[in-house]
Amino acid sequence: MNAELQNQTAELLRGTQEVLVESELVKKITRGTPLRIKAGFDPTAPDLHLGHTVLINKMRQFQNFGHEVTFLIGDFTGMIGDPTGRNATRPPLTREQVEANAKTYQEQIFKILDPERTRVDFNSRWFGPMSAAGLIEIAGRHTVARMLERDDFAKRYKGGQPIAIHEFLYPLVQGYDSVALRSDVELGGTDQKFNLLVGRQLQETYGQEPQIVMTMPLLEGLDGVNKMSKSLGNYIGINEPADTQFGKLMSISDELMWRYFELLSFRPLADVAALRKSVAEGRNPRDVKFELGIEIVDRFHGAGAGARSRDAFIARFQQGHVPEKIESVTLTTDGAPQRLANVLKNAGLVASTSDGNRMIDQGAVRLGSTPENLEKVAGRDHSLGAGTHLLQVGKHKFRWVTLKAG
Amino acid sequence: MNAELQNQTAELLRGTQEVLVESELVKKITRGTPLRIKAGFDPTAPDLHLGHTVLINKMRQFQNFGHEVTFLIGDFTGMIGDPTGRNATRPPLTREQVEANAKTYQEQIFKILDPERTRVDFNSRWFGPMSAAGLIEIAGRHTVARMLERDDFAKRYKGGQPIAIHEFLYPLVQGYDSVALRSDVELGGTDQKFNLLVGRQLQETYGQEPQIVMTMPLLEGLDGVNKMSKSLGNYIGINEPADTQFGKLMSISDELMWRYFELLSFRPLADVAALRKSVAEGRNPRDVKFELGIEIVDRFHGAGAGARSRDAFIARFQQGHVPEKIESVTLTTDGAPQRLANVLKNAGLVASTSDGNRMIDQGAVRLGSTPENLEKVAGRDHSLGAGTHLLQVGKHKFRWVTLKAG
Repeated sequence: MNAELQNQTAELLRGTQEVLVESELVKKITRGTPLRIKAGFDPTAPDLHLGHTVLINKMRQFQNFGHEVTFLIGDFTGMIGDPTGRNATRPPLTREQVEANAKTYQEQIFKILDPERTRVDFNSRWFGPMSAAGLIEIAGRHTVARMLERDDFAKRYKGGQPIAIHEFLYPLVQGYDSVALRSDVELGGTDQKFNLLVGRQLQETYGQEPQIVMTMPLLEGLDGVNKMSKSLGNYIGINEPADTQFGKLMSISDELMWRYFELLSFRPLADVAALRKSVAEGRNPRDVKFELGIEIVDRFHGAGAGARSRDAFIARFQQGHVPEKIESVTLTTDGAPQRLANVLKNAGLVASTSDGNRMIDQGAVRLGSTPENLEKVAGRDHSLGAGTHLLQVGKHKFRWVTLKAG
Repeated sequence: MNAELQNQTAELLRGTQEVLVESELVKKITRGTPLRIKAGFDPTAPDLHLGHTVLINKMRQFQNFGHEVTFLIGDFTGMIGDPTGRNATRPPLTREQVEANAKTYQEQIFKILDPERTRVDFNSRWFGPMSAAGLIEIAGRHTVARMLERDDFAKRYKGGQPIAIHEFLYPLVQGYDSVALRSDVELGGTDQKFNLLVGRQLQETYGQEPQIVMTMPLLEGLDGVNKMSKSLGNYIGINEPADTQFGKLMSISDELMWRYFELLSFRPLADVAALRKSVAEGRNPRDVKFELGIEIVDRFHGAGAGARSRDAFIARFQQGHVPEKIESVTLTTDGAPQRLANVLKNAGLVASTSDGNRMIDQGAVRLGSTPENLEKVAGRDHSLGAGTHLLQVGKHKFRWVTLKAG
């Protein structure tokens, strides 16, 4: 294998959770012909954050190496909904909703993917016209025992919780998508591993070379502990304002910064290694974090936006209002809104709740979701719900506080 | 309930193995409106014997009471065949084969059923146009756990033998047939009980009144022990000659005769009770058996045929060649053809194989499949395969001998 292919392999393996089977991936890459990369997405309306982009970034990497990427929207099952009728929150989608959602997807993913080299496809293209007999034919290619090996099925079966029979068909539908696309590699989250393997097995029964299964890890949120998620509030949305994205990125730990470089940055592995070395040799990690922030903000707000956000960020420091680095703390609650004075105490910003109430009375407590929108809290009755909040007490005490139902 | 409905209920319950739920059947009958009766049949070419007619007789009974009978041919799955490809003996049927087989069926069943009041239907009528999405919708109405309760599935799953997922769909297909037909009662063999219950459950999810599940027992063959089957040779085919049918019926035990009256005769229960009483009071059971033989032969060969067969049967006795009653014996073999002298000895017709060979040499052994076609055996090399044979040694020794691979 030449140096170029070695580099390609290393970049494609970068940040992956699991690759089944790595040697087959190497073999396919070595052939030198473009590979067909498949990644499936729910047809529900997306509002993506950086956690979602880990997978899309990997798709982009494949594109950069000349491979063909299919962004597959699983609208066939989405338009069926939940036939058991138990799940009222999952009503069947209409064709119009699917198309509107696809448009919303594209507006977001094309901030990362090259539109010229991305095929957006819908599995209703082959499953819509398929007959019941065709589906039975597919179902004959997999066994009940194998399906019951999937963790959640195994648990529910053993625990006496019902599994509707159509739930055994959905992994087959997803697997057959790989047959229809003749995919060489399928990307997915770690929770998708079983379904991705079904695709691999089905392809073999159709005489196709089985796809490589490549799973990507869940990205840690700003707290560095929990997975990034809207409901935890520890996220960076790709549609958030540039300064908000930049500010949130500046709040992460140095350790988490390297994880984000691995999964969110397109800088070559060699560059990242060099940055690591420079920090080890004494460079201020803040400056390296600036580079990460600039790259991410540029991606979602256009070239130059990152540098502007960095300058605004520095200006705020020089005014002395917001420190360069703000500590984060996660507090577990009973799910109910928490009185502000209690939060201040538990976050270590005041010595006691009465101390906290006094500071509120004096107008010395400010609250916001970013350093830019901090505002004075009016009175002691203020409560905080689940999510991440930025709190300031007096001139110099700042804390990112994440409240999480325990 | 009036006397007429009481009688109808008693006749419909006659000979049944299981009725789920009997009280619901009574309720439906009491309404007085015609019920929709469903019975499903394989689309493979049939060659029916009296064992198969137990179910068809029950359909006829329903017709006699004014109910609507659907003879449903399950051609939809028959035209799919075995998608696993493991079963080379079950290739998919073509539309032409299905139609030819349906014609063969009708020629046979209309010797029992009233063609004017029988609807012959095919489940491809609703499953042929059904989409994959439609089938998924049905699959959402049943659970994996319930399906794994079926005896053969449970055994195979526990034993580590593969169950292909489409095998879970076939009972749903059969069950949905009941929904499509809105059936009030489904008839089937005892081995079909599980699938019939699936129909009952599916109907409930579609808001229909669940069908009554009525299973019929397997008919014992001429030996009175094993179920009637071609391969055991203990059968009476509905296309066999009149005298053969009559002769075979005369060979059954008196006990088995009452079983056949229950499951094969259309004589009212009161008549059968009267016949039983007459025998208990001293009437020759042979004369009662004549009545059964006449009814059955008339059914398949037209009115009058039974009486002619009886007269021919009596004439043979008066000639002294064939006794009125011939004993039956079943011999278990290794599957290979058996030398005649050995069979004669094991059947108790001769004292030893050398004795047997001597009788063959003397031309004193005759062989046939009915009393009418007995012929002298040419030499000692003669062997007998599996099946039922009639053997005569000398003038007076007769035996029905069934050879069966053990």
